[in-house]
Amino acid sequence: MTQTDTALPFDAAQLDRLAEVAIRVGVGLRPGQDLIVTADAAALPLLRRIAKVAYREGAGLVTPMISDSAITRARYEMAADHSFDRAPGWLYDGMASAYGDNSARLHIVSDDPMLLADQDTDKVARAGKALNQAYTPARKMITGFQTNWSICAYPAPSWARLMFPDMAEDAAVAKLAEAIFAASRADREDPVAAWNAHNAELLARRKWLDDHRFHSLHYSGPGTDLTIGLADDHRWKGGKSTSKKGVDCNPNIPTEEVFTTPHRERVSGIVRATKPLAHQGSLIEGIEVRFEGGRIVEAKASKGEEVFLKLIDNDEGARRLGEVALVPASSPISASGLLFYNTLFDENAASHIALGQCYADCFTDTKMSDEEIAARGGNSSMIHVDWMIGSTEIDIDGLDADGGRTPVMRGGEWAQAL
Amino acid sequence: MTQTDTALPFDAAQLDRLAEVAIRVGVGLRPGQDLIVTADAAALPLLRRIAKVAYREGAGLVTPMISDSAITRARYEMAADHSFDRAPGWLYDGMASAYGDNSARLHIVSDDPMLLADQDTDKVARAGKALNQAYTPARKMITGFQTNWSICAYPAPSWARLMFPDMAEDAAVAKLAEAIFAASRADREDPVAAWNAHNAELLARRKWLDDHRFHSLHYSGPGTDLTIGLADDHRWKGGKSTSKKGVDCNPNIPTEEVFTTPHRERVSGIVRATKPLAHQGSLIEGIEVRFEGGRIVEAKASKGEEVFLKLIDNDEGARRLGEVALVPASSPISASGLLFYNTLFDENAASHIALGQCYADCFTDTKMSDEEIAARGGNSSMIHVDWMIGSTEIDIDGLDADGGRTPVMRGGEWAQAL
Ligand SMILES: [Zn+2]
Ligand SMILES: [Zn+2]
Ligand SMILES: [Zn+2]
Ligand SMILES: [Zn+2]
Repeated sequence: MTQTDTALPFDAAQLDRLAEVAIRVGVGLRPGQDLIVTADAAALPLLRRIAKVAYREGAGLVTPMISDSAITRARYEMAADHSFDRAPGWLYDGMASAYGDNSARLHIVSDDPMLLADQDTDKVARAGKALNQAYTPARKMITGFQTNWSICAYPAPSWARLMFPDMAEDAAVAKLAEAIFAASRADREDPVAAWNAHNAELLARRKWLDDHRFHSLHYSGPGTDLTIGLADDHRWKGGKSTSKKGVDCNPNIPTEEVFTTPHRERVSGIVRATKPLAHQGSLIEGIEVRFEGGRIVEAKASKGEEVFLKLIDNDEGARRLGEVALVPASSPISASGLLFYNTLFDENAASHIALGQCYADCFTDTKMSDEEIAARGGNSSMIHVDWMIGSTEIDIDGLDADGGRTPVMRGGEWAQAL
Repeated sequence: MTQTDTALPFDAAQLDRLAEVAIRVGVGLRPGQDLIVTADAAALPLLRRIAKVAYREGAGLVTPMISDSAITRARYEMAADHSFDRAPGWLYDGMASAYGDNSARLHIVSDDPMLLADQDTDKVARAGKALNQAYTPARKMITGFQTNWSICAYPAPSWARLMFPDMAEDAAVAKLAEAIFAASRADREDPVAAWNAHNAELLARRKWLDDHRFHSLHYSGPGTDLTIGLADDHRWKGGKSTSKKGVDCNPNIPTEEVFTTPHRERVSGIVRATKPLAHQGSLIEGIEVRFEGGRIVEAKASKGEEVFLKLIDNDEGARRLGEVALVPASSPISASGLLFYNTLFDENAASHIALGQCYADCFTDTKMSDEEIAARGGNSSMIHVDWMIGSTEIDIDGLDADGGRTPVMRGGEWAQAL
């Protein structure tokens, strides 16, 4: 009933290796841990491989939570108005309790990012808000690394058709598969060793940034003159993370970024997005924003402006930053030249910022309460949305508290060799 | 990625009508109700139609809970021993709370009933027991009709291949589809009207049985000489039920039975199964059992005896009866001559009994506590497993408390015209 292996228009051996990467590098699954995997039905060929690897690695129980984009679409086409304020709170509360009970978590990205692009933006925003609210307890478990978790990707036909509209479907899927496998290092002979080396590089970059203890970062380039204050006691993260229970995981497969928590009240100036933002099925292009005291006070977009304005109106924290991330413009994903219409990939093509919830993990003390995090400048929100502000035209300086300047990036590349 | 409509080897219009039956007759979904649908990925063509009909009928949120038989199988093939005592309690607890919060429930049967037939019976039994325990709160909401619910079926290839091993897959699926549509009355011009007429017939039969207030039923035939005491204040049910919130539903699509609650301590004699029992992937044939004081004291089977013995050892209630059901041997499903290897269908081909949990609904007062139900003879257990004891060779009498006898069935048919 679902695509069989013989029908996969790409190398199934690389899909096997992606499953290994997802469980051993991404989730870092420990023997005896349960695993919750969320995925669209289109990703079943990967989901099945992941379940096998997880069980082989000693998983307790693998619980697949399979959604279906046709059913999601049916809601927008058929449902009464009241439907769009509903969300399955019972399901997300249950997931949150499972994460608290040592279940690991993996999400497979595969959906057409434009699935809801032609639907009523008000309905999409309301449904998104209801979902975000329902998801809050589970999201806090995840962002606080109460358990080990990861996100990886599968080349589903609808996504491939969006990226390569002029190709036949099988050729498009093959091309997306090749890009996913390369970015996820599943094309390597020994992907786990490749990830170990990559994690070591990211760690060296984090250490350099941590050692400099910058008070803020200053961005300059076309349409951008932005100062981002960093949170007190911030710490740079990237690549491998460690859960509160001491389990190593790579939350994003792929990942090229190092990132930390900005100060929610110390962001000022103007910034122009350097890539489109695909958000809940809409494409938002040409974002231009002005910050004052950490808060977005002016915002416009050349396309999808209504969606962007709704997004930043989700709650007070949606207008403030929760993440600042550095990615060289020469990153492999940037070098591919592809626009994936998906943050998991596109954020790794450029330096970026995220509106909304900060990562509690990006502090020297990772066991702080919400109040302690807020006191250090950490933002809270029901959203976390990344968008790209880096390019080969952007320079970034690190500023000390006393005004000293250190070049961090020049023309989109690291200014210092390590 | 999943079977498309053009690839369905049967009449898609009848599948549309089955979705109408499932929502309007089966679940009886009310506007504003949420709906949880559990199904295997193989049933997506029906699941998608059901979601559309549910939203068209005013559903709040349709939450599909999609399982995948390949992942289920991967567990048995790959998992460490400790896995088989695990169950997703957080998920079933969440479902129970959703049912309490007015979510309706629909399950689509489609799996190959023999999915686990070649797996270690000990692992299958342990996993089944863990699942049964985790499912207990949700099952109590269902069997107590705290919400409206239903089960229907989809002709998945693996199930069709099992039933028609000598046919090509498409032909087998077409034949199973035809049988499901006919039994579910989805082959009728106006299936909802057909179900209304059928429900009226079942209601008349229930009324006749209720009016006679039999103290017990006596079964005689080859290998069978069994007296089944009925619970005090029992009431016969069948066809349409009404939830505690007053919503009409048909819990089984199809259904031909009328049934009630036996007295868990007043069953005695011997009984021989008249059809095989497919249980958790095993086929149990030639069951022969002796009851004393309501309890199974001797049990054997010509095939799958080990599985049957494990089943009745699940808990104390697993050795006692929770349901007694009457079905004429001429029922449409019996007339089809097919063995479906699935209780939803096969129980409608013959009179049957169920081991385990009783239906709280089968009493004159349907709002009794567990203690009140037990005081009237209602059984409780973490299992509920039906098996067939009726055939054209079986006679059934109704016995009054003072010993009076009334013929109920002769040669498997109703003894009285109504
Ligand atoms: Zn990021
Ligand atoms: Zn982010
Ligand atoms: Zn029954
Ligand atoms: Zn039953």
